[in-house]
Amino acid sequence: MRYVTFHGIIAARKVVSRFLKSTPLTHYPELSEKLGFQANIKHENHLPTGSFKVRGGINFMSNLPTEQKKQGVVTATRGNHGQSIAYAAAQFGVKATIVVPHGNNREKNSAMHAFGAELIEHGNDFDEARELCDTLQAERGLYYVHPCIEPALIHGVGTYSLEIFESLPDVHTIIVPIGGGSGVCGAITVAKAINPNVKIIGVQAENAPAIYRSWKAGEHIETDSCNTIADGLATRVPFKLPFSIIKEGIHDIVTVSEEEIRAGIRSALRHTHNLAEGAGVAALAAAKKLKDKLAGQNVAMIMSGGNLDMDTLKEVLTDS
Amino acid sequence: MRYVTFHGIIAARKVVSRFLKSTPLTHYPELSEKLGFQANIKHENHLPTGSFKVRGGINFMSNLPTEQKKQGVVTATRGNHGQSIAYAAAQFGVKATIVVPHGNNREKNSAMHAFGAELIEHGNDFDEARELCDTLQAERGLYYVHPCIEPALIHGVGTYSLEIFESLPDVHTIIVPIGGGSGVCGAITVAKAINPNVKIIGVQAENAPAIYRSWKAGEHIETDSCNTIADGLATRVPFKLPFSIIKEGIHDIVTVSEEEIRAGIRSALRHTHNLAEGAGVAALAAAKKLKDKLAGQNVAMIMSGGNLDMDTLKEVLTDS
Repeated sequence: MRYVTFHGIIAARKVVSRFLKSTPLTHYPELSEKLGFQANIKHENHLPTGSFKVRGGINFMSNLPTEQKKQGVVTATRGNHGQSIAYAAAQFGVKATIVVPHGNNREKNSAMHAFGAELIEHGNDFDEARELCDTLQAERGLYYVHPCIEPALIHGVGTYSLEIFESLPDVHTIIVPIGGGSGVCGAITVAKAINPNVKIIGVQAENAPAIYRSWKAGEHIETDSCNTIADGLATRVPFKLPFSIIKEGIHDIVTVSEEEIRAGIRSALRHTHNLAEGAGVAALAAAKKLKDKLAGQNVAMIMSGGNLDMDTLKEVLTDS
Repeated sequence: MRYVTFHGIIAARKVVSRFLKSTPLTHYPELSEKLGFQANIKHENHLPTGSFKVRGGINFMSNLPTEQKKQGVVTATRGNHGQSIAYAAAQFGVKATIVVPHGNNREKNSAMHAFGAELIEHGNDFDEARELCDTLQAERGLYYVHPCIEPALIHGVGTYSLEIFESLPDVHTIIVPIGGGSGVCGAITVAKAINPNVKIIGVQAENAPAIYRSWKAGEHIETDSCNTIADGLATRVPFKLPFSIIKEGIHDIVTVSEEEIRAGIRSALRHTHNLAEGAGVAALAAAKKLKDKLAGQNVAMIMSGGNLDMDTLKEVLTDS
């Protein structure tokens, strides 16, 4: 296993900041009044691909050996990871091949295509799509970018946590959605180096609780399904690298229900005027549940992405 | 009349950049493909009050004489200008009194209140609310911050145009919504100083075309009503200072219908994953109409604000 280090995140920042503006950590006084703590949102949804993942994509692509840059990369995705790789590949002149399952969201496909990636539809779900990556890696000599176990990706996304400490040095708690786990691993690594008193709280969907259960049990647990509106949280399998970091460094993991996520999307629209996807409001939804414990604190909540499709948005709004 | 100068905008930047992050100018490849030009959106909706106005508020407040800072300020508003003044006043420890008409949008009132301003409801529309400002100015010694004729406000909002030239030096056209006119005056002043070949195109609502008509006629024309979903564009009266700058420096003004604005809100959600208010999508709506003229160009469109309330959002989404 390769390692994730604070040094790796510091080095990533040099690369990432050449391509991406740092994102705002915005204080919302109205939310703060309602919730009883200082509510700050880290707007990763403001990045050019609409999610934090692009920080990892840029860092990964920059560190790819020249020979492999010429050969190209392949990955499987349902959305944000693919947009990140497509975007970053275009910046570095690398050919990206992206495998999506049949029936994948058309808006997401079209965004990846527009960033210049070649799209292949294969299989009926993410895991079947992933199998084709192995084949393409062997046949075409493409580098397979695994979404969760590349230290360069984790180092890249770790830069948002650095930015949080810089704009809010006296932050007490950082709340981070956990899908594959790259974001939360960055936060844990940065907090450990800068101020180990800062609590990192992870959030998973009740309907996709693989890491939550594994963490509770202290052992690797997979789930049979991961059926959540928050596709950024929809993972069934905890990966070894992120799980080892989470086990060691996380303060707490809470789960949020589908209804809490939906209410979070509405709340983000109403109180922050931001369109956020399900994973993007998981931290806000969790913070509501934790409000008594967080009273009086400076809290940073990661709005990890804004890529909500129109059909889902309409549906969520008619709930209310 | 006091003056608007490029030097004033350069000086404003020193102040504004201490309080606000520069906003991203994001390139959207999918929109570019659809529209046939390089579509870049300047995300003023990402600022902490959700609109560009706060740049002006910060610059104004910083330049207010110490004595007047102690006395406080008053203004009338229906939304974004008031949030800007409330936010900026709080940063400088100045007491802000904000007059809103009865029946003003509650979400907007509540945001201004949360920024720490004293809110007074008075009159049935903006003009009646404004009258109370004169009284409060006289009775309480408050400084009345006029939303459209304070050079410090125009200098402050002019900083977004500086940022555009810095991130996209070879921009060809900048499209700016016109309500009171502060944003477009900043753009005209900056373009004239940096590259007079860059075209500044203004956008007004068909239902609130006071400046458009005045510009066509070459004389001051008021309208009887300004009934548009884009409240940031809802002005009936062209003010002398901005109008004189517009007359001299604008390349074109186009108007957009209510239906085009609504479609623009949906398009911004779908293609940029940003919640934008009516005025915030006016540039995008105008760009669609001008796509043949803009073919192949680098175009910057100002997404001036994102403060759309939930009821309007729901209504706009059910149209489609």
